[in-house]
This record gives sequence, C-alpha cells and structure tokens, in this order.
Amino acid sequence: MERVQSGSLRKDHLGQEVTLKGWVQKRRDLGGLIFIDLRDRSGLVQVVFNPETSNEALNTAENVRSEYVLEIIGEVVARDEKTINPSIGTGEIEVAAQSVTILNKAKTPPFMIEEQSEVSEDLRLKYRYLDLRRKEMQDTFKLRHQATQSIRNFLNEEEFLEMETPMLTKSTPEGARDYLVPSRVHEGQFYALPQSPQLFKQMLMMSGFEKYYQIARCFRDEDLRADRQPEFTQVDIETSFMSKDEIMTMTERMMKKVMKEVKGIEVSTPFPRMSYEEAMERYGSDKPDTRFGLELVNLSEEVENSGFKVFSGAVSSGGQVSAINVEGKADEFSRKDIDKMTEDVKVYGAKGLAWLKVKDGEFNGPIAKFFTEEEADLIKSKTGATEGDLLLFVADKTSVVYDSLGALRQKLARRLDLIEEDRFNFLWVTDWPLLEYDEEEERYFAAHHPFTKPAEKDMEQLHTNPQDVHAEAYDIVLNGYELGGGSLRIHQREVQNQMFEVLGFSQEEAEEQFGFLLEALEYGAPPHGGIALGFDRFVMLLAGRTNLRDTILFPKTASATDPMTNAPGSVSKAQLDELHLQLKPKE
Amino acid sequence: MERVQSGSLRKDHLGQEVTLKGWVQKRRDLGGLIFIDLRDRSGLVQVVFNPETSNEALNTAENVRSEYVLEIIGEVVARDEKTINPSIGTGEIEVAAQSVTILNKAKTPPFMIEEQSEVSEDLRLKYRYLDLRRKEMQDTFKLRHQATQSIRNFLNEEEFLEMETPMLTKSTPEGARDYLVPSRVHEGQFYALPQSPQLFKQMLMMSGFEKYYQIARCFRDEDLRADRQPEFTQVDIETSFMSKDEIMTMTERMMKKVMKEVKGIEVSTPFPRMSYEEAMERYGSDKPDTRFGLELVNLSEEVENSGFKVFSGAVSSGGQVSAINVEGKADEFSRKDIDKMTEDVKVYGAKGLAWLKVKDGEFNGPIAKFFTEEEADLIKSKTGATEGDLLLFVADKTSVVYDSLGALRQKLARRLDLIEEDRFNFLWVTDWPLLEYDEEEERYFAAHHPFTKPAEKDMEQLHTNPQDVHAEAYDIVLNGYELGGGSLRIHQREVQNQMFEVLGFSQEEAEEQFGFLLEALEYGAPPHGGIALGFDRFVMLLAGRTNLRDTILFPKTASATDPMTNAPGSVSKAQLDELHLQLKPKE
Repeated sequence: MERVQSGSLRKDHLGQEVTLKGWVQKRRDLGGLIFIDLRDRSGLVQVVFNPETSNEALNTAENVRSEYVLEIIGEVVARDEKTINPSIGTGEIEVAAQSVTILNKAKTPPFMIEEQSEVSEDLRLKYRYLDLRRKEMQDTFKLRHQATQSIRNFLNEEEFLEMETPMLTKSTPEGARDYLVPSRVHEGQFYALPQSPQLFKQMLMMSGFEKYYQIARCFRDEDLRADRQPEFTQVDIETSFMSKDEIMTMTERMMKKVMKEVKGIEVSTPFPRMSYEEAMERYGSDKPDTRFGLELVNLSEEVENSGFKVFSGAVSSGGQVSAINVEGKADEFSRKDIDKMTEDVKVYGAKGLAWLKVKDGEFNGPIAKFFTEEEADLIKSKTGATEGDLLLFVADKTSVVYDSLGALRQKLARRLDLIEEDRFNFLWVTDWPLLEYDEEEERYFAAHHPFTKPAEKDMEQLHTNPQDVHAEAYDIVLNGYELGGGSLRIHQREVQNQMFEVLGFSQEEAEEQFGFLLEALEYGAPPHGGIALGFDRFVMLLAGRTNLRDTILFPKTASATDPMTNAPGSVSKAQLDELHLQLKPKE
Repeated sequence: MERVQSGSLRKDHLGQEVTLKGWVQKRRDLGGLIFIDLRDRSGLVQVVFNPETSNEALNTAENVRSEYVLEIIGEVVARDEKTINPSIGTGEIEVAAQSVTILNKAKTPPFMIEEQSEVSEDLRLKYRYLDLRRKEMQDTFKLRHQATQSIRNFLNEEEFLEMETPMLTKSTPEGARDYLVPSRVHEGQFYALPQSPQLFKQMLMMSGFEKYYQIARCFRDEDLRADRQPEFTQVDIETSFMSKDEIMTMTERMMKKVMKEVKGIEVSTPFPRMSYEEAMERYGSDKPDTRFGLELVNLSEEVENSGFKVFSGAVSSGGQVSAINVEGKADEFSRKDIDKMTEDVKVYGAKGLAWLKVKDGEFNGPIAKFFTEEEADLIKSKTGATEGDLLLFVADKTSVVYDSLGALRQKLARRLDLIEEDRFNFLWVTDWPLLEYDEEEERYFAAHHPFTKPAEKDMEQLHTNPQDVHAEAYDIVLNGYELGGGSLRIHQREVQNQMFEVLGFSQEEAEEQFGFLLEALEYGAPPHGGIALGFDRFVMLLAGRTNLRDTILFPKTASATDPMTNAPGSVSKAQLDELHLQLKPKE
C-alpha cells in the first residue's frame, strides 16, 4: 500500500486505511491507550493505539520513544468533539493503528525537536540533522527551494541559459583572499576556488551566449562576520547588448515574480532609484533601509558661521554637520539615553553627539546658547523640527558623519519600533564611484571590480581625476541589506588597459594576470553587463530570519569550522607529499 | 527600438524595420553591394548594404571584417527568387541596412568560427570563447540547459527539494583522491572538496527532508582519461522510505521525460534489468551496450574434456572458455584481421584468440581438428553457428575472458557498423557484489561505497563469506556507458559498524572518520537510498558527442590545466605563509 503523508490527512479520508511513515514527535499514555504524534515532512498526525483495534500494535507502541521511526497502518477515524485540535490541519481526525513496525530506534536527542528550541548554536550545529527536523528549519529550506525555482523559471522564460563555470580556477591577487587548491600534477602550482564567476561569465558573453545565469557557489577566505560564510551562493546573471536600464528592469521583474510566488506579496515596480551620493547624504548608508524616515539633514551651510566652534570648525575644515530629527520623542530620551547614544556613535569615530530639544518653541540643551535666533530658525526650518522633537547632531569628517548617523538611525528605528517587519522595500543605488583610494597602499582600488565600465561622461577624467569618475554600476538594496550588485563591463581592450593603468598594474602584471581577458576583448567582445544577487541573504530576508546560518543547510561557524563533521581536519603526510607541500614549522 | 533576434526573421516580417545586434559571420562584396551574414545566438541573417538605401552604411560596412560586433537598423525585404537559400530559416529574406554601428572590432581569429572547424583541441581550448561561438557548441550547451531544466522540473513535480550541500568538507581516506583546501584559520588543517555529496545527502535524510536533489559539482584528483574531468557534475538524488524498485521506477520516469523533452524520443519503460553476473556472462561488461548482439557464449562445459588443451586447461584451472559468434561474416575476416584482433585482446591479458569458421557445414581453421564431431555439434548448437559464421574464442581466467571479449565485442560492432547511433538503450544492472578484494592491500574495499546496504538475504555471510555478499545497488547503463548508480544505504548503526569492521577499520578509525554518521544513525535515521547520475556524460550521449570535454564549457586538459586562463598557477609566498605551508624542496 502506498505511503500517505501524515500532514495531508483530513476528514475526507475518514474510513480509509492508510500507511504512514515518520518520526515520533510525542507519545502519551492515557487510560490504557497510547497516543503518538507522528511527524513527517508534511506535518503531524495523531495515531491512537487501543486494545480493540490491535493489542499487538499497542504492545509495540509501549516500547516507542521520541524520534523513533515508525511504519504504521491504520484507519482514519474522526476525533471526539472534545479532542479536536484546530491548531493543526489534521486536528479533526486521528489514525487508529492496526499495525506498527519500528523502522529504527532513537536515543534521547540532546535537545527537543520543537519549534522554539532554546539551545546553543554550537549544539544545534553539531547535531545539525536534529536541528533541521524542526518545523521552522524545514520551512526555511522549503522556502529556499521555492525561491530557487521561482528565479530559475523566470530566467528560463526570459531565454537565459543556465551554465556551469569552473570551480578550479586561477588565483588573482585583486579582490578578497582566495581559497587555494594545490595541484598534484603541477608541482608548486595552485588552483583557486572562485570568489565569483565574474571573468567566466564575461567570457561566456564573448562566446556569444548572450544570456547566462547560474546559481553559483562562491568562496572567500575572509574573517567571518554574522552575515558572511566561507562559501555562499549567488544568483549570477550576465547579458550581452542590454542597457543598464534593461538589466535593472529585468531584475525588477524577477524580484516581483519571486515576491509574488514565494511570499504572496505584490511589490510595485519600478523600484525607487537613488544615487550613491544621495543615499549617503540622506541615510548615511549606501544600502539604506527605507522602511522608516529619520533621514539625515545636512546643516553645514546653516551652521558654518555658528558660535558653536565644534560645528563651524567641522565645516571649515572640509567636514560637515548633519542631524537626525527624532520627531515628537524629546521626552522619551533622558540625558542618560543620549550619553549611551554618544558612546554608540564614538564607535564610528565621531567625537561626540550634540543634541537639541524643542520645548516651548525654543531650543533646549547645553549647546542651545550658541545659536542666534536666525540660525535656530534655519535649523528648525531645514529639519522640520517642531515642539517636542529631538535633534541629534554629528559634526565631523563627512565619512564619520555618515557612518555614525547612519548607524544611529538604525538603532533609533529599532528602539522606536518604526520598522514594519513584513514590508519589503527594494531600492536601486546607482552612480557609484568607480575607484576608492587606499591610503595605506597609496593606490586606487576598483570600488566594485576592475572590469566595471566607467561612466562614458567621466571617461576623460580617468587619469586626471580618478576619484571623480563614476561607474556604470548599480546595487539592489532590500530593507537595509545589499541584496546584490551589478554593472556594465568594459568590453574594449583600450579601456581595460587604461583601467589597469589607473589601478597601478604594469603592462606585464596586467598580461600575466588577465592576459586571456585582454586578448578576448580583441576578438569581437560584445557590450555586456549583469548582476549578482546574494542568495543566502535574500532567503534570510524572505524567511524573516536574522542569522545567515539559518538559511544554509550545513553552515560554518565564525572560525570556519563545521562542528558536525569537524571539518577542516588533518591529512596524512602522504597526501601532502603528493601535493609537494609541507607544513611550515611553527614559530 | 527593441532588438530582434537575427535568426528569427521570416517572410512575415517583410517591410518591418528591425534592429539587429550580432557578429559578422562573413562579408562578401559583389557588384558595388556588400553582403554580411550577421550571427547571433539565434542564427544567421543576410544583411545587404546598397548605395540606394544608405551610402553611409555602405561606407561603414567596407571597414567591417569577420567577428566584428555590429548594430544594424534596416528593413526586412524579400530576396530575389534566385538568391533564396532554403538551407537556413532566414533564407527567403534579407535586411536592407539603413544604418550600421560598429560596437566592437575583431582581429582575425586564430581559426574560423564554422561548424566543422579542423583545429587542434589545444588551440580550441586556449581560445575557448571563439570555439564556443560555433553552432555545434552553442547547440550542445542549449541542450545541456534543456536537460538540466527537464530533470529539475521532473524532480520538482515529484516534490523533491533542491538543496545545497557544502563544498568545503572533510577529507576521508576511503574512496578516490581528494582535492584539498588548506585552512588559514586552523594551522595544519585542510578542507576537502566533495567527491560527491554522499554523506551530506544521507544526513539530509536523517534531517527529515525525505526527498532531496542537487545538480552538484564533484571533484576527484585522479589521473584523467578521455571521459574524466577533475570537476564534474552529477544529478544527485536521495529519498527516505522508498524501496529499491520505487527509486528505479522514479528514475525511469525521469529519463523518459528527459528523452521526450530534449530529444523528442519515446523510450519505453520499465527498462530491462539484468544482474551483474548476467551482464558479465553475456556481454563481458558491467555496462553493456545492448544496441547490438554479438553476445558472449559460455562454452566451458562443452569443451572441458576437449583435446584442445588450451580450452580444457582453462576450464580445469577454474577459468572459462567463451566465444562470440560473428554471424555470416566468416569471409570478411582474413587471417590478418584475426591476427590484429589477437593483439587487441592481448591488451586485456588474454594469451590468444582462437577462431573457427563454418564452411560447407564443417568447422574450419587451425584448431578445428581438436574437436570431436559431438563437441563440434554442441558448440554449434550453443552458439547458433551456421554456414558462413565466424566464432572467436578466449580461454582464460574468467575476468580476462570477460574483459577481452567484452572489448572485442565493442570493436566488432563498430567495424561491422552494427550500432544504431540514434538509438538509446537504457538498462539496469543489479545484484552487485558488495565488496571487492584488493590483492595488494590484502583487504576488502566497498565496491560502491561503505554506506551501501548489504542484501538482507546475505547479511549473515558478511563476516564469513564477504565476497559472496550482494549489495542493494543498481547501476543505470545507457548505450554501453555507466550513466549512474545508486543503492539503498545502511540506516542502522549496528550494520554500519559491521561494514567498517569488514573493511578493516578499527573502532577508533571508524569513529575518527565517520563518527558523526555513526552517531546520527542512533537518533532515528530513516531507511533511505538514492542515485547519482553523471550529468556531463549524459549530455554527451544526448548530444551525440564522443568527447566529454565538448559538454563542459571550460574543461581541463588531460593534465588538469585550463589553457585559456593558465590555471593552475603559482601563488605568492605571502599566500602560502598565511596558509602555514611551504613548498617541499625539489629532490
């Protein structure tokens, strides 16, 4: 008899004989009967063992404990009115067991397989196979599956080809740190695991495939933060002949479809677009969460001649003064609260946090006395500050102002409960700078990667004012997270040569590392561009989780280990010998 | 104006103005006109430049050469009756160019971008992006895409979840050689790239997901043959609670769907099933090509007392005598041909190749005299040999008989043109031995892997007669290629312990390497099993190719290098230092 999914049983099945296979969620003994909640991936059903139906089954059931694996044959029967459980789909019925087979036993698990299990993450990762049995984990990976298929279906319909690029590639010093794979055949040589399929997808455009995608595993050997993993998955897309607008519009259509199919939410398109400069100025962040206000207001002009030297001094030395207006909340923030926030902004390099409250129409607070009436009016007018509002100021180097107020803005939103958790605010951030100057190495680095196309209008400044050149790049932001980024790519050798020059590569270095790309650009490379989306993070946001590890089946810890398999591990000397390697003696 | 695909233009489009973007396949100058075949991924269209439509476009076209990338705006017009080209879809029309923009130039490619390009594979791989522009390569990767989606759609419909298992895993000595990835954080420790997701997919069954699949990249650091690559792709499937038959039937449904959707071919199910023993006996191979006959006939009994000592001796020393009947072809094989075949079988360890021809009702040939009339009749009857047939014999150790005649059978079929190239013969090979004895290491190895379930009926012989124990394993064979293999897995710790014992693991070794699996088996592991299909090889067969490298976008050479990017490459001392490694001094 074919197996039936436990969670699928309803009153329609009354009287049917069914075979179930699954795990014991719970067993209860009550008045000579035994009740077992049987769990499979579809859900739970209650099975009842009673002496009238089968004494033998009842006897077997007596030996059964949590997480035992059972095969049960029984009849679907109605529950007593009194025992109906409306909180589960199968709550109106139960299965009267005619027979039960123990398919496997189980020791008492180290933690309960329940929705809200209060267990340390270490233990959860060591017994990941038990952790994954919990309903919220099962749901997360079903959602991940759905999102994957939804994205694929969209791209297939748009005539993209799914293509597999190599994992054993060549190490290039530009970018993050590579994971290396020693070659056995070629002594002293190494492959690198890809940080992204960037160059291969560009080569596919030069191969004439025009529309490529891959849900690709990528690797970065970086020190891990909460939202980083050594290996991660990205939705990797590249197209030929499409404009920046066409790529962005296509991405919006894709997001719209996924949100609809996976979350049942209609998001409206086009998504808002904002330049990098505007994002920094208004939100102090290049990935602003636009679900709430608390925008930064630049008051540099208003205070440049102020008697408050901290403000006027910041402006005169090339920095700026910005403020956040916490509307109507003046009374909710004590001196102590503000002291706490001052500590928070100091983390970002701010020397302090100035504040003003509006009370009886006047500014109130230790710095109020420094402003003329005219200045106070200008500040009120620009920030919109009215009675009961709290203004929080940082005056510093521009980058410090953005970083500190950007972070403060997030903290305030959480404290004031301004974030609608079930809202999904997409946003494009555009007009990125092409290059970033690294003070330490005294050279420019590519802000995205060295293959990003400079904005046509800025091309002639590439050598004279590199810091002012914009990139044909766009990031997609969701609820304050960078969901992904893309750009048009350089498709002309001459431009790519110039880019390497600006980055300080000698011609030999450029040839040595990227010779194949430079050569390929000479054989009819089409104009092309694309985008890559961080899929783990997207799933995290879709699933309403806050920990990236909850969206990866077998994630690594912050020190890049897997507590279940104990990877990484030691290997034999013979293995190292074959790879022509030895461990460096410890110092 | 939106771009139109070149290959899509038909007479329906007559009079329309279209924008095309693509590559110059060919340019011809003829009577003051210029003709360009413009190629994009959809195909070719002829563009004509003439002074009446646009002198400017004509002038630009004069500078255009093969593989230039162009944007062309023009009107779809009918071709002259005389110049209609029925061999291409766009052959009835052409596009009269109103304007042309050169999007990129191209140097003369090192080889022509044509269907039958006679180029060394080395050059093709170095300029892979040019090789991939050829129609047959484009077609292969479109087919690969289709096959991927077809498999996914099938598995999604059957409620499998697509799930991603880790790439940075732990090295285990059992199996092929691992690719290793040194850890930076953990001095002297290494990750390994997965040879397959085997253990992780089993852990997913223990996690309660019940139906898993992944189109997974796998890695083996083995010396390469024509049909091996360092990294390869497999369709990886695992299920809980399904029987062997259910898994095989599900796989058949999947294959049926893929063959229908990708090739338009109806294959009939169920696929034939054959035990490993029968496959070896009848075809001398565990992955027989059943598209032709030429079966092996075991004549050991018939010749065990023969006066021909080579035959009777082989039987009496525990070997066997088998023959292939090459029906009706006695006259087609000269003494020289047979000498050549003798050399061929010697490669497989055979000491020689005996032969008999049937002429005028009698056996003919140097060994004919050794057989009594009765023996001759028995041989004729069992092999079905009649007038004009050629019998080819090998008498040796059983394994040599199988290997040599199995290989000879393939050679004969090709020589005699017996193989219908467009036929797809699927076959299941079942009842595999669980273990193989390794003479050198003097121990048993798992014939598949150490997690394969022993046949219930043979369990009690696991320690006493390990060589006789069968596995609950099944291979799927297509046209003489092993397409994939699967098995039920051990789901009980006690059995897994025994298996490790038979393989010669101490308890400590088993714990050290597979402790997490052994422990997981104690917490309610469900009965489970699955299958893995070699996807690159499947695509090769579907595309009618013979070289696996033609089915992989950026394959490695036989020495595991990529001639395009020059991977693997050297890395800096700083990189090695961070990994706590140094190169071994050369000897």
